[in-house]
Amino acid sequence: MSVYKEIIEVRSKGASPTFINVTEEVRGAIEKSGIRDGIATVISPHTTCGVFFEEFVHDVDADGVETLQHDLNDVLKKIIPDQMALDDYHYPAEEHYRAVERWPNAAEYLPDGDRSALFNGDAHLKATLIGSSQTFLVDGGKLGVGTTGYIYFVDFDRTRARTRKCQIVVLGA
Amino acid sequence: MSVYKEIIEVRSKGASPTFINVTEEVRGAIEKSGIRDGIATVISPHTTCGVFFEEFVHDVDADGVETLQHDLNDVLKKIIPDQMALDDYHYPAEEHYRAVERWPNAAEYLPDGDRSALFNGDAHLKATLIGSSQTFLVDGGKLGVGTTGYIYFVDFDRTRARTRKCQIVVLGA
Amino acid sequence: MSVYKEIIEVRSKGASPTFINVTEEVRGAIEKSGIRDGIATVISPHTTCGVFFEEFVHDVDADGVETLQHDLNDVLKKIIPDQMALDDYHYPAEEHYRAVERWPNAAEYLPDGDRSALFNGDAHLKATLIGSSQTFLVDGGKLGVGTTGYIYFVDFDRTRARTRKCQIVVLGA
Repeated sequence: MSVYKEIIEVRSKGASPTFINVTEEVRGAIEKSGIRDGIATVISPHTTCGVFFEEFVHDVDADGVETLQHDLNDVLKKIIPDQMALDDYHYPAEEHYRAVERWPNAAEYLPDGDRSALFNGDAHLKATLIGSSQTFLVDGGKLGVGTTGYIYFVDFDRTRARTRKCQIVVLGA
Repeated sequence: MSVYKEIIEVRSKGASPTFINVTEEVRGAIEKSGIRDGIATVISPHTTCGVFFEEFVHDVDADGVETLQHDLNDVLKKIIPDQMALDDYHYPAEEHYRAVERWPNAAEYLPDGDRSALFNGDAHLKATLIGSSQTFLVDGGKLGVGTTGYIYFVDFDRTRARTRKCQIVVLGA
Repeated sequence: MSVYKEIIEVRSKGASPTFINVTEEVRGAIEKSGIRDGIATVISPHTTCGVFFEEFVHDVDADGVETLQHDLNDVLKKIIPDQMALDDYHYPAEEHYRAVERWPNAAEYLPDGDRSALFNGDAHLKATLIGSSQTFLVDGGKLGVGTTGYIYFVDFDRTRARTRKCQIVVLGA
């Protein structure tokens, strides 16, 4: 039994949710691990990002978003509209702003002190519904999914472009 | 530490989501694994299927669907209506049809070239919300759930009856 | 490779969903495990509870509920209203009542034979959407999440206050 972990960096574009196909990276981690049988878990350490399993689709919209992702955005927006104003959600509120302003890296979360930079309540809620981790089978040294199955990391935070981490852990023998 | 994996086949009926109680199969895999303490992960390798944990319910509707599953269908349909026409969702679209038509097993996805066979955008989105994997505790050689907890594999794809795979991995000592 | 498991007890308050921050307990389990690299999986063995990853928020409402949790309640209620009457959902129904009445611990589920105590169909469905498990990275002996990431156990069952179990499993080397 052994364990292999890899943390990859992905880039989100801001303005709308960013979907990143990390399937090849997961296949690569399994290969590097040398593990034949076990699990590969893909994890977001960020509370406005998630991980899900979906078909790769060949058509994209004008923004380069695959049609199933566009449909997912539409479905999620129906129940969790984009936060455009402070009172769209209960989050964020005064104590939270004050706490963030005291963080050493406050400027990263509130650039120029702009409080609207935290209007990402919708991203938090969408990430909670999608989930922060998914686990896959490692089968004979390969990722155990069908030919149409792909692994996506999604950053729902529209407030700005960012570098994000995606964690991959392979466990088994 | 050891790893045990088992891939079982389940049968979906098409026309509406098929829910399959796989709890006994998971208990059986844990027993065969000989593992006393660790995890059992249940995984769907199909992008229109999912795995969830729910109470077993003794009442079924006219189609044999347990009442909580009927309620889940109702909730999901409210936000993700069944795809009845091409333009209900952005998926599927032209490039995707062309790609599928080039697959060696194209006839399986587009029987008689019938393009409506891919009107399963709703199933993809429902599966994304439910998630493709769930992990359970293995506690003293037993599945660590209460007496009312059961594990369900669900195939949301209404387009046709199919044989599906459900993957079970047990890891631990 | 080794495995460490810990089952903690948490207390729900009833009347509305109870959110319990279990991050410190997960950090403690990782430390006690002595495992440096691997995974920590947090699991609910109850079908009306779930586990999710979210930012800790410093503002709470009059009931002590963090604002993001209040927002999550609002979103879930829109699609899954609280069950106030038998016919709000198909669950629960006659055969299920009869089965529960035969359980050795029937009084726990139907105190004084009050059938409204099973009006928790909404809690079952919310727990299914949120998911019963999440897996996190163990990185150099630490929980591999950012400074703003916390792990919450949620009991969606409003019908009564209860002691619940939250399972933590750490696997790795």
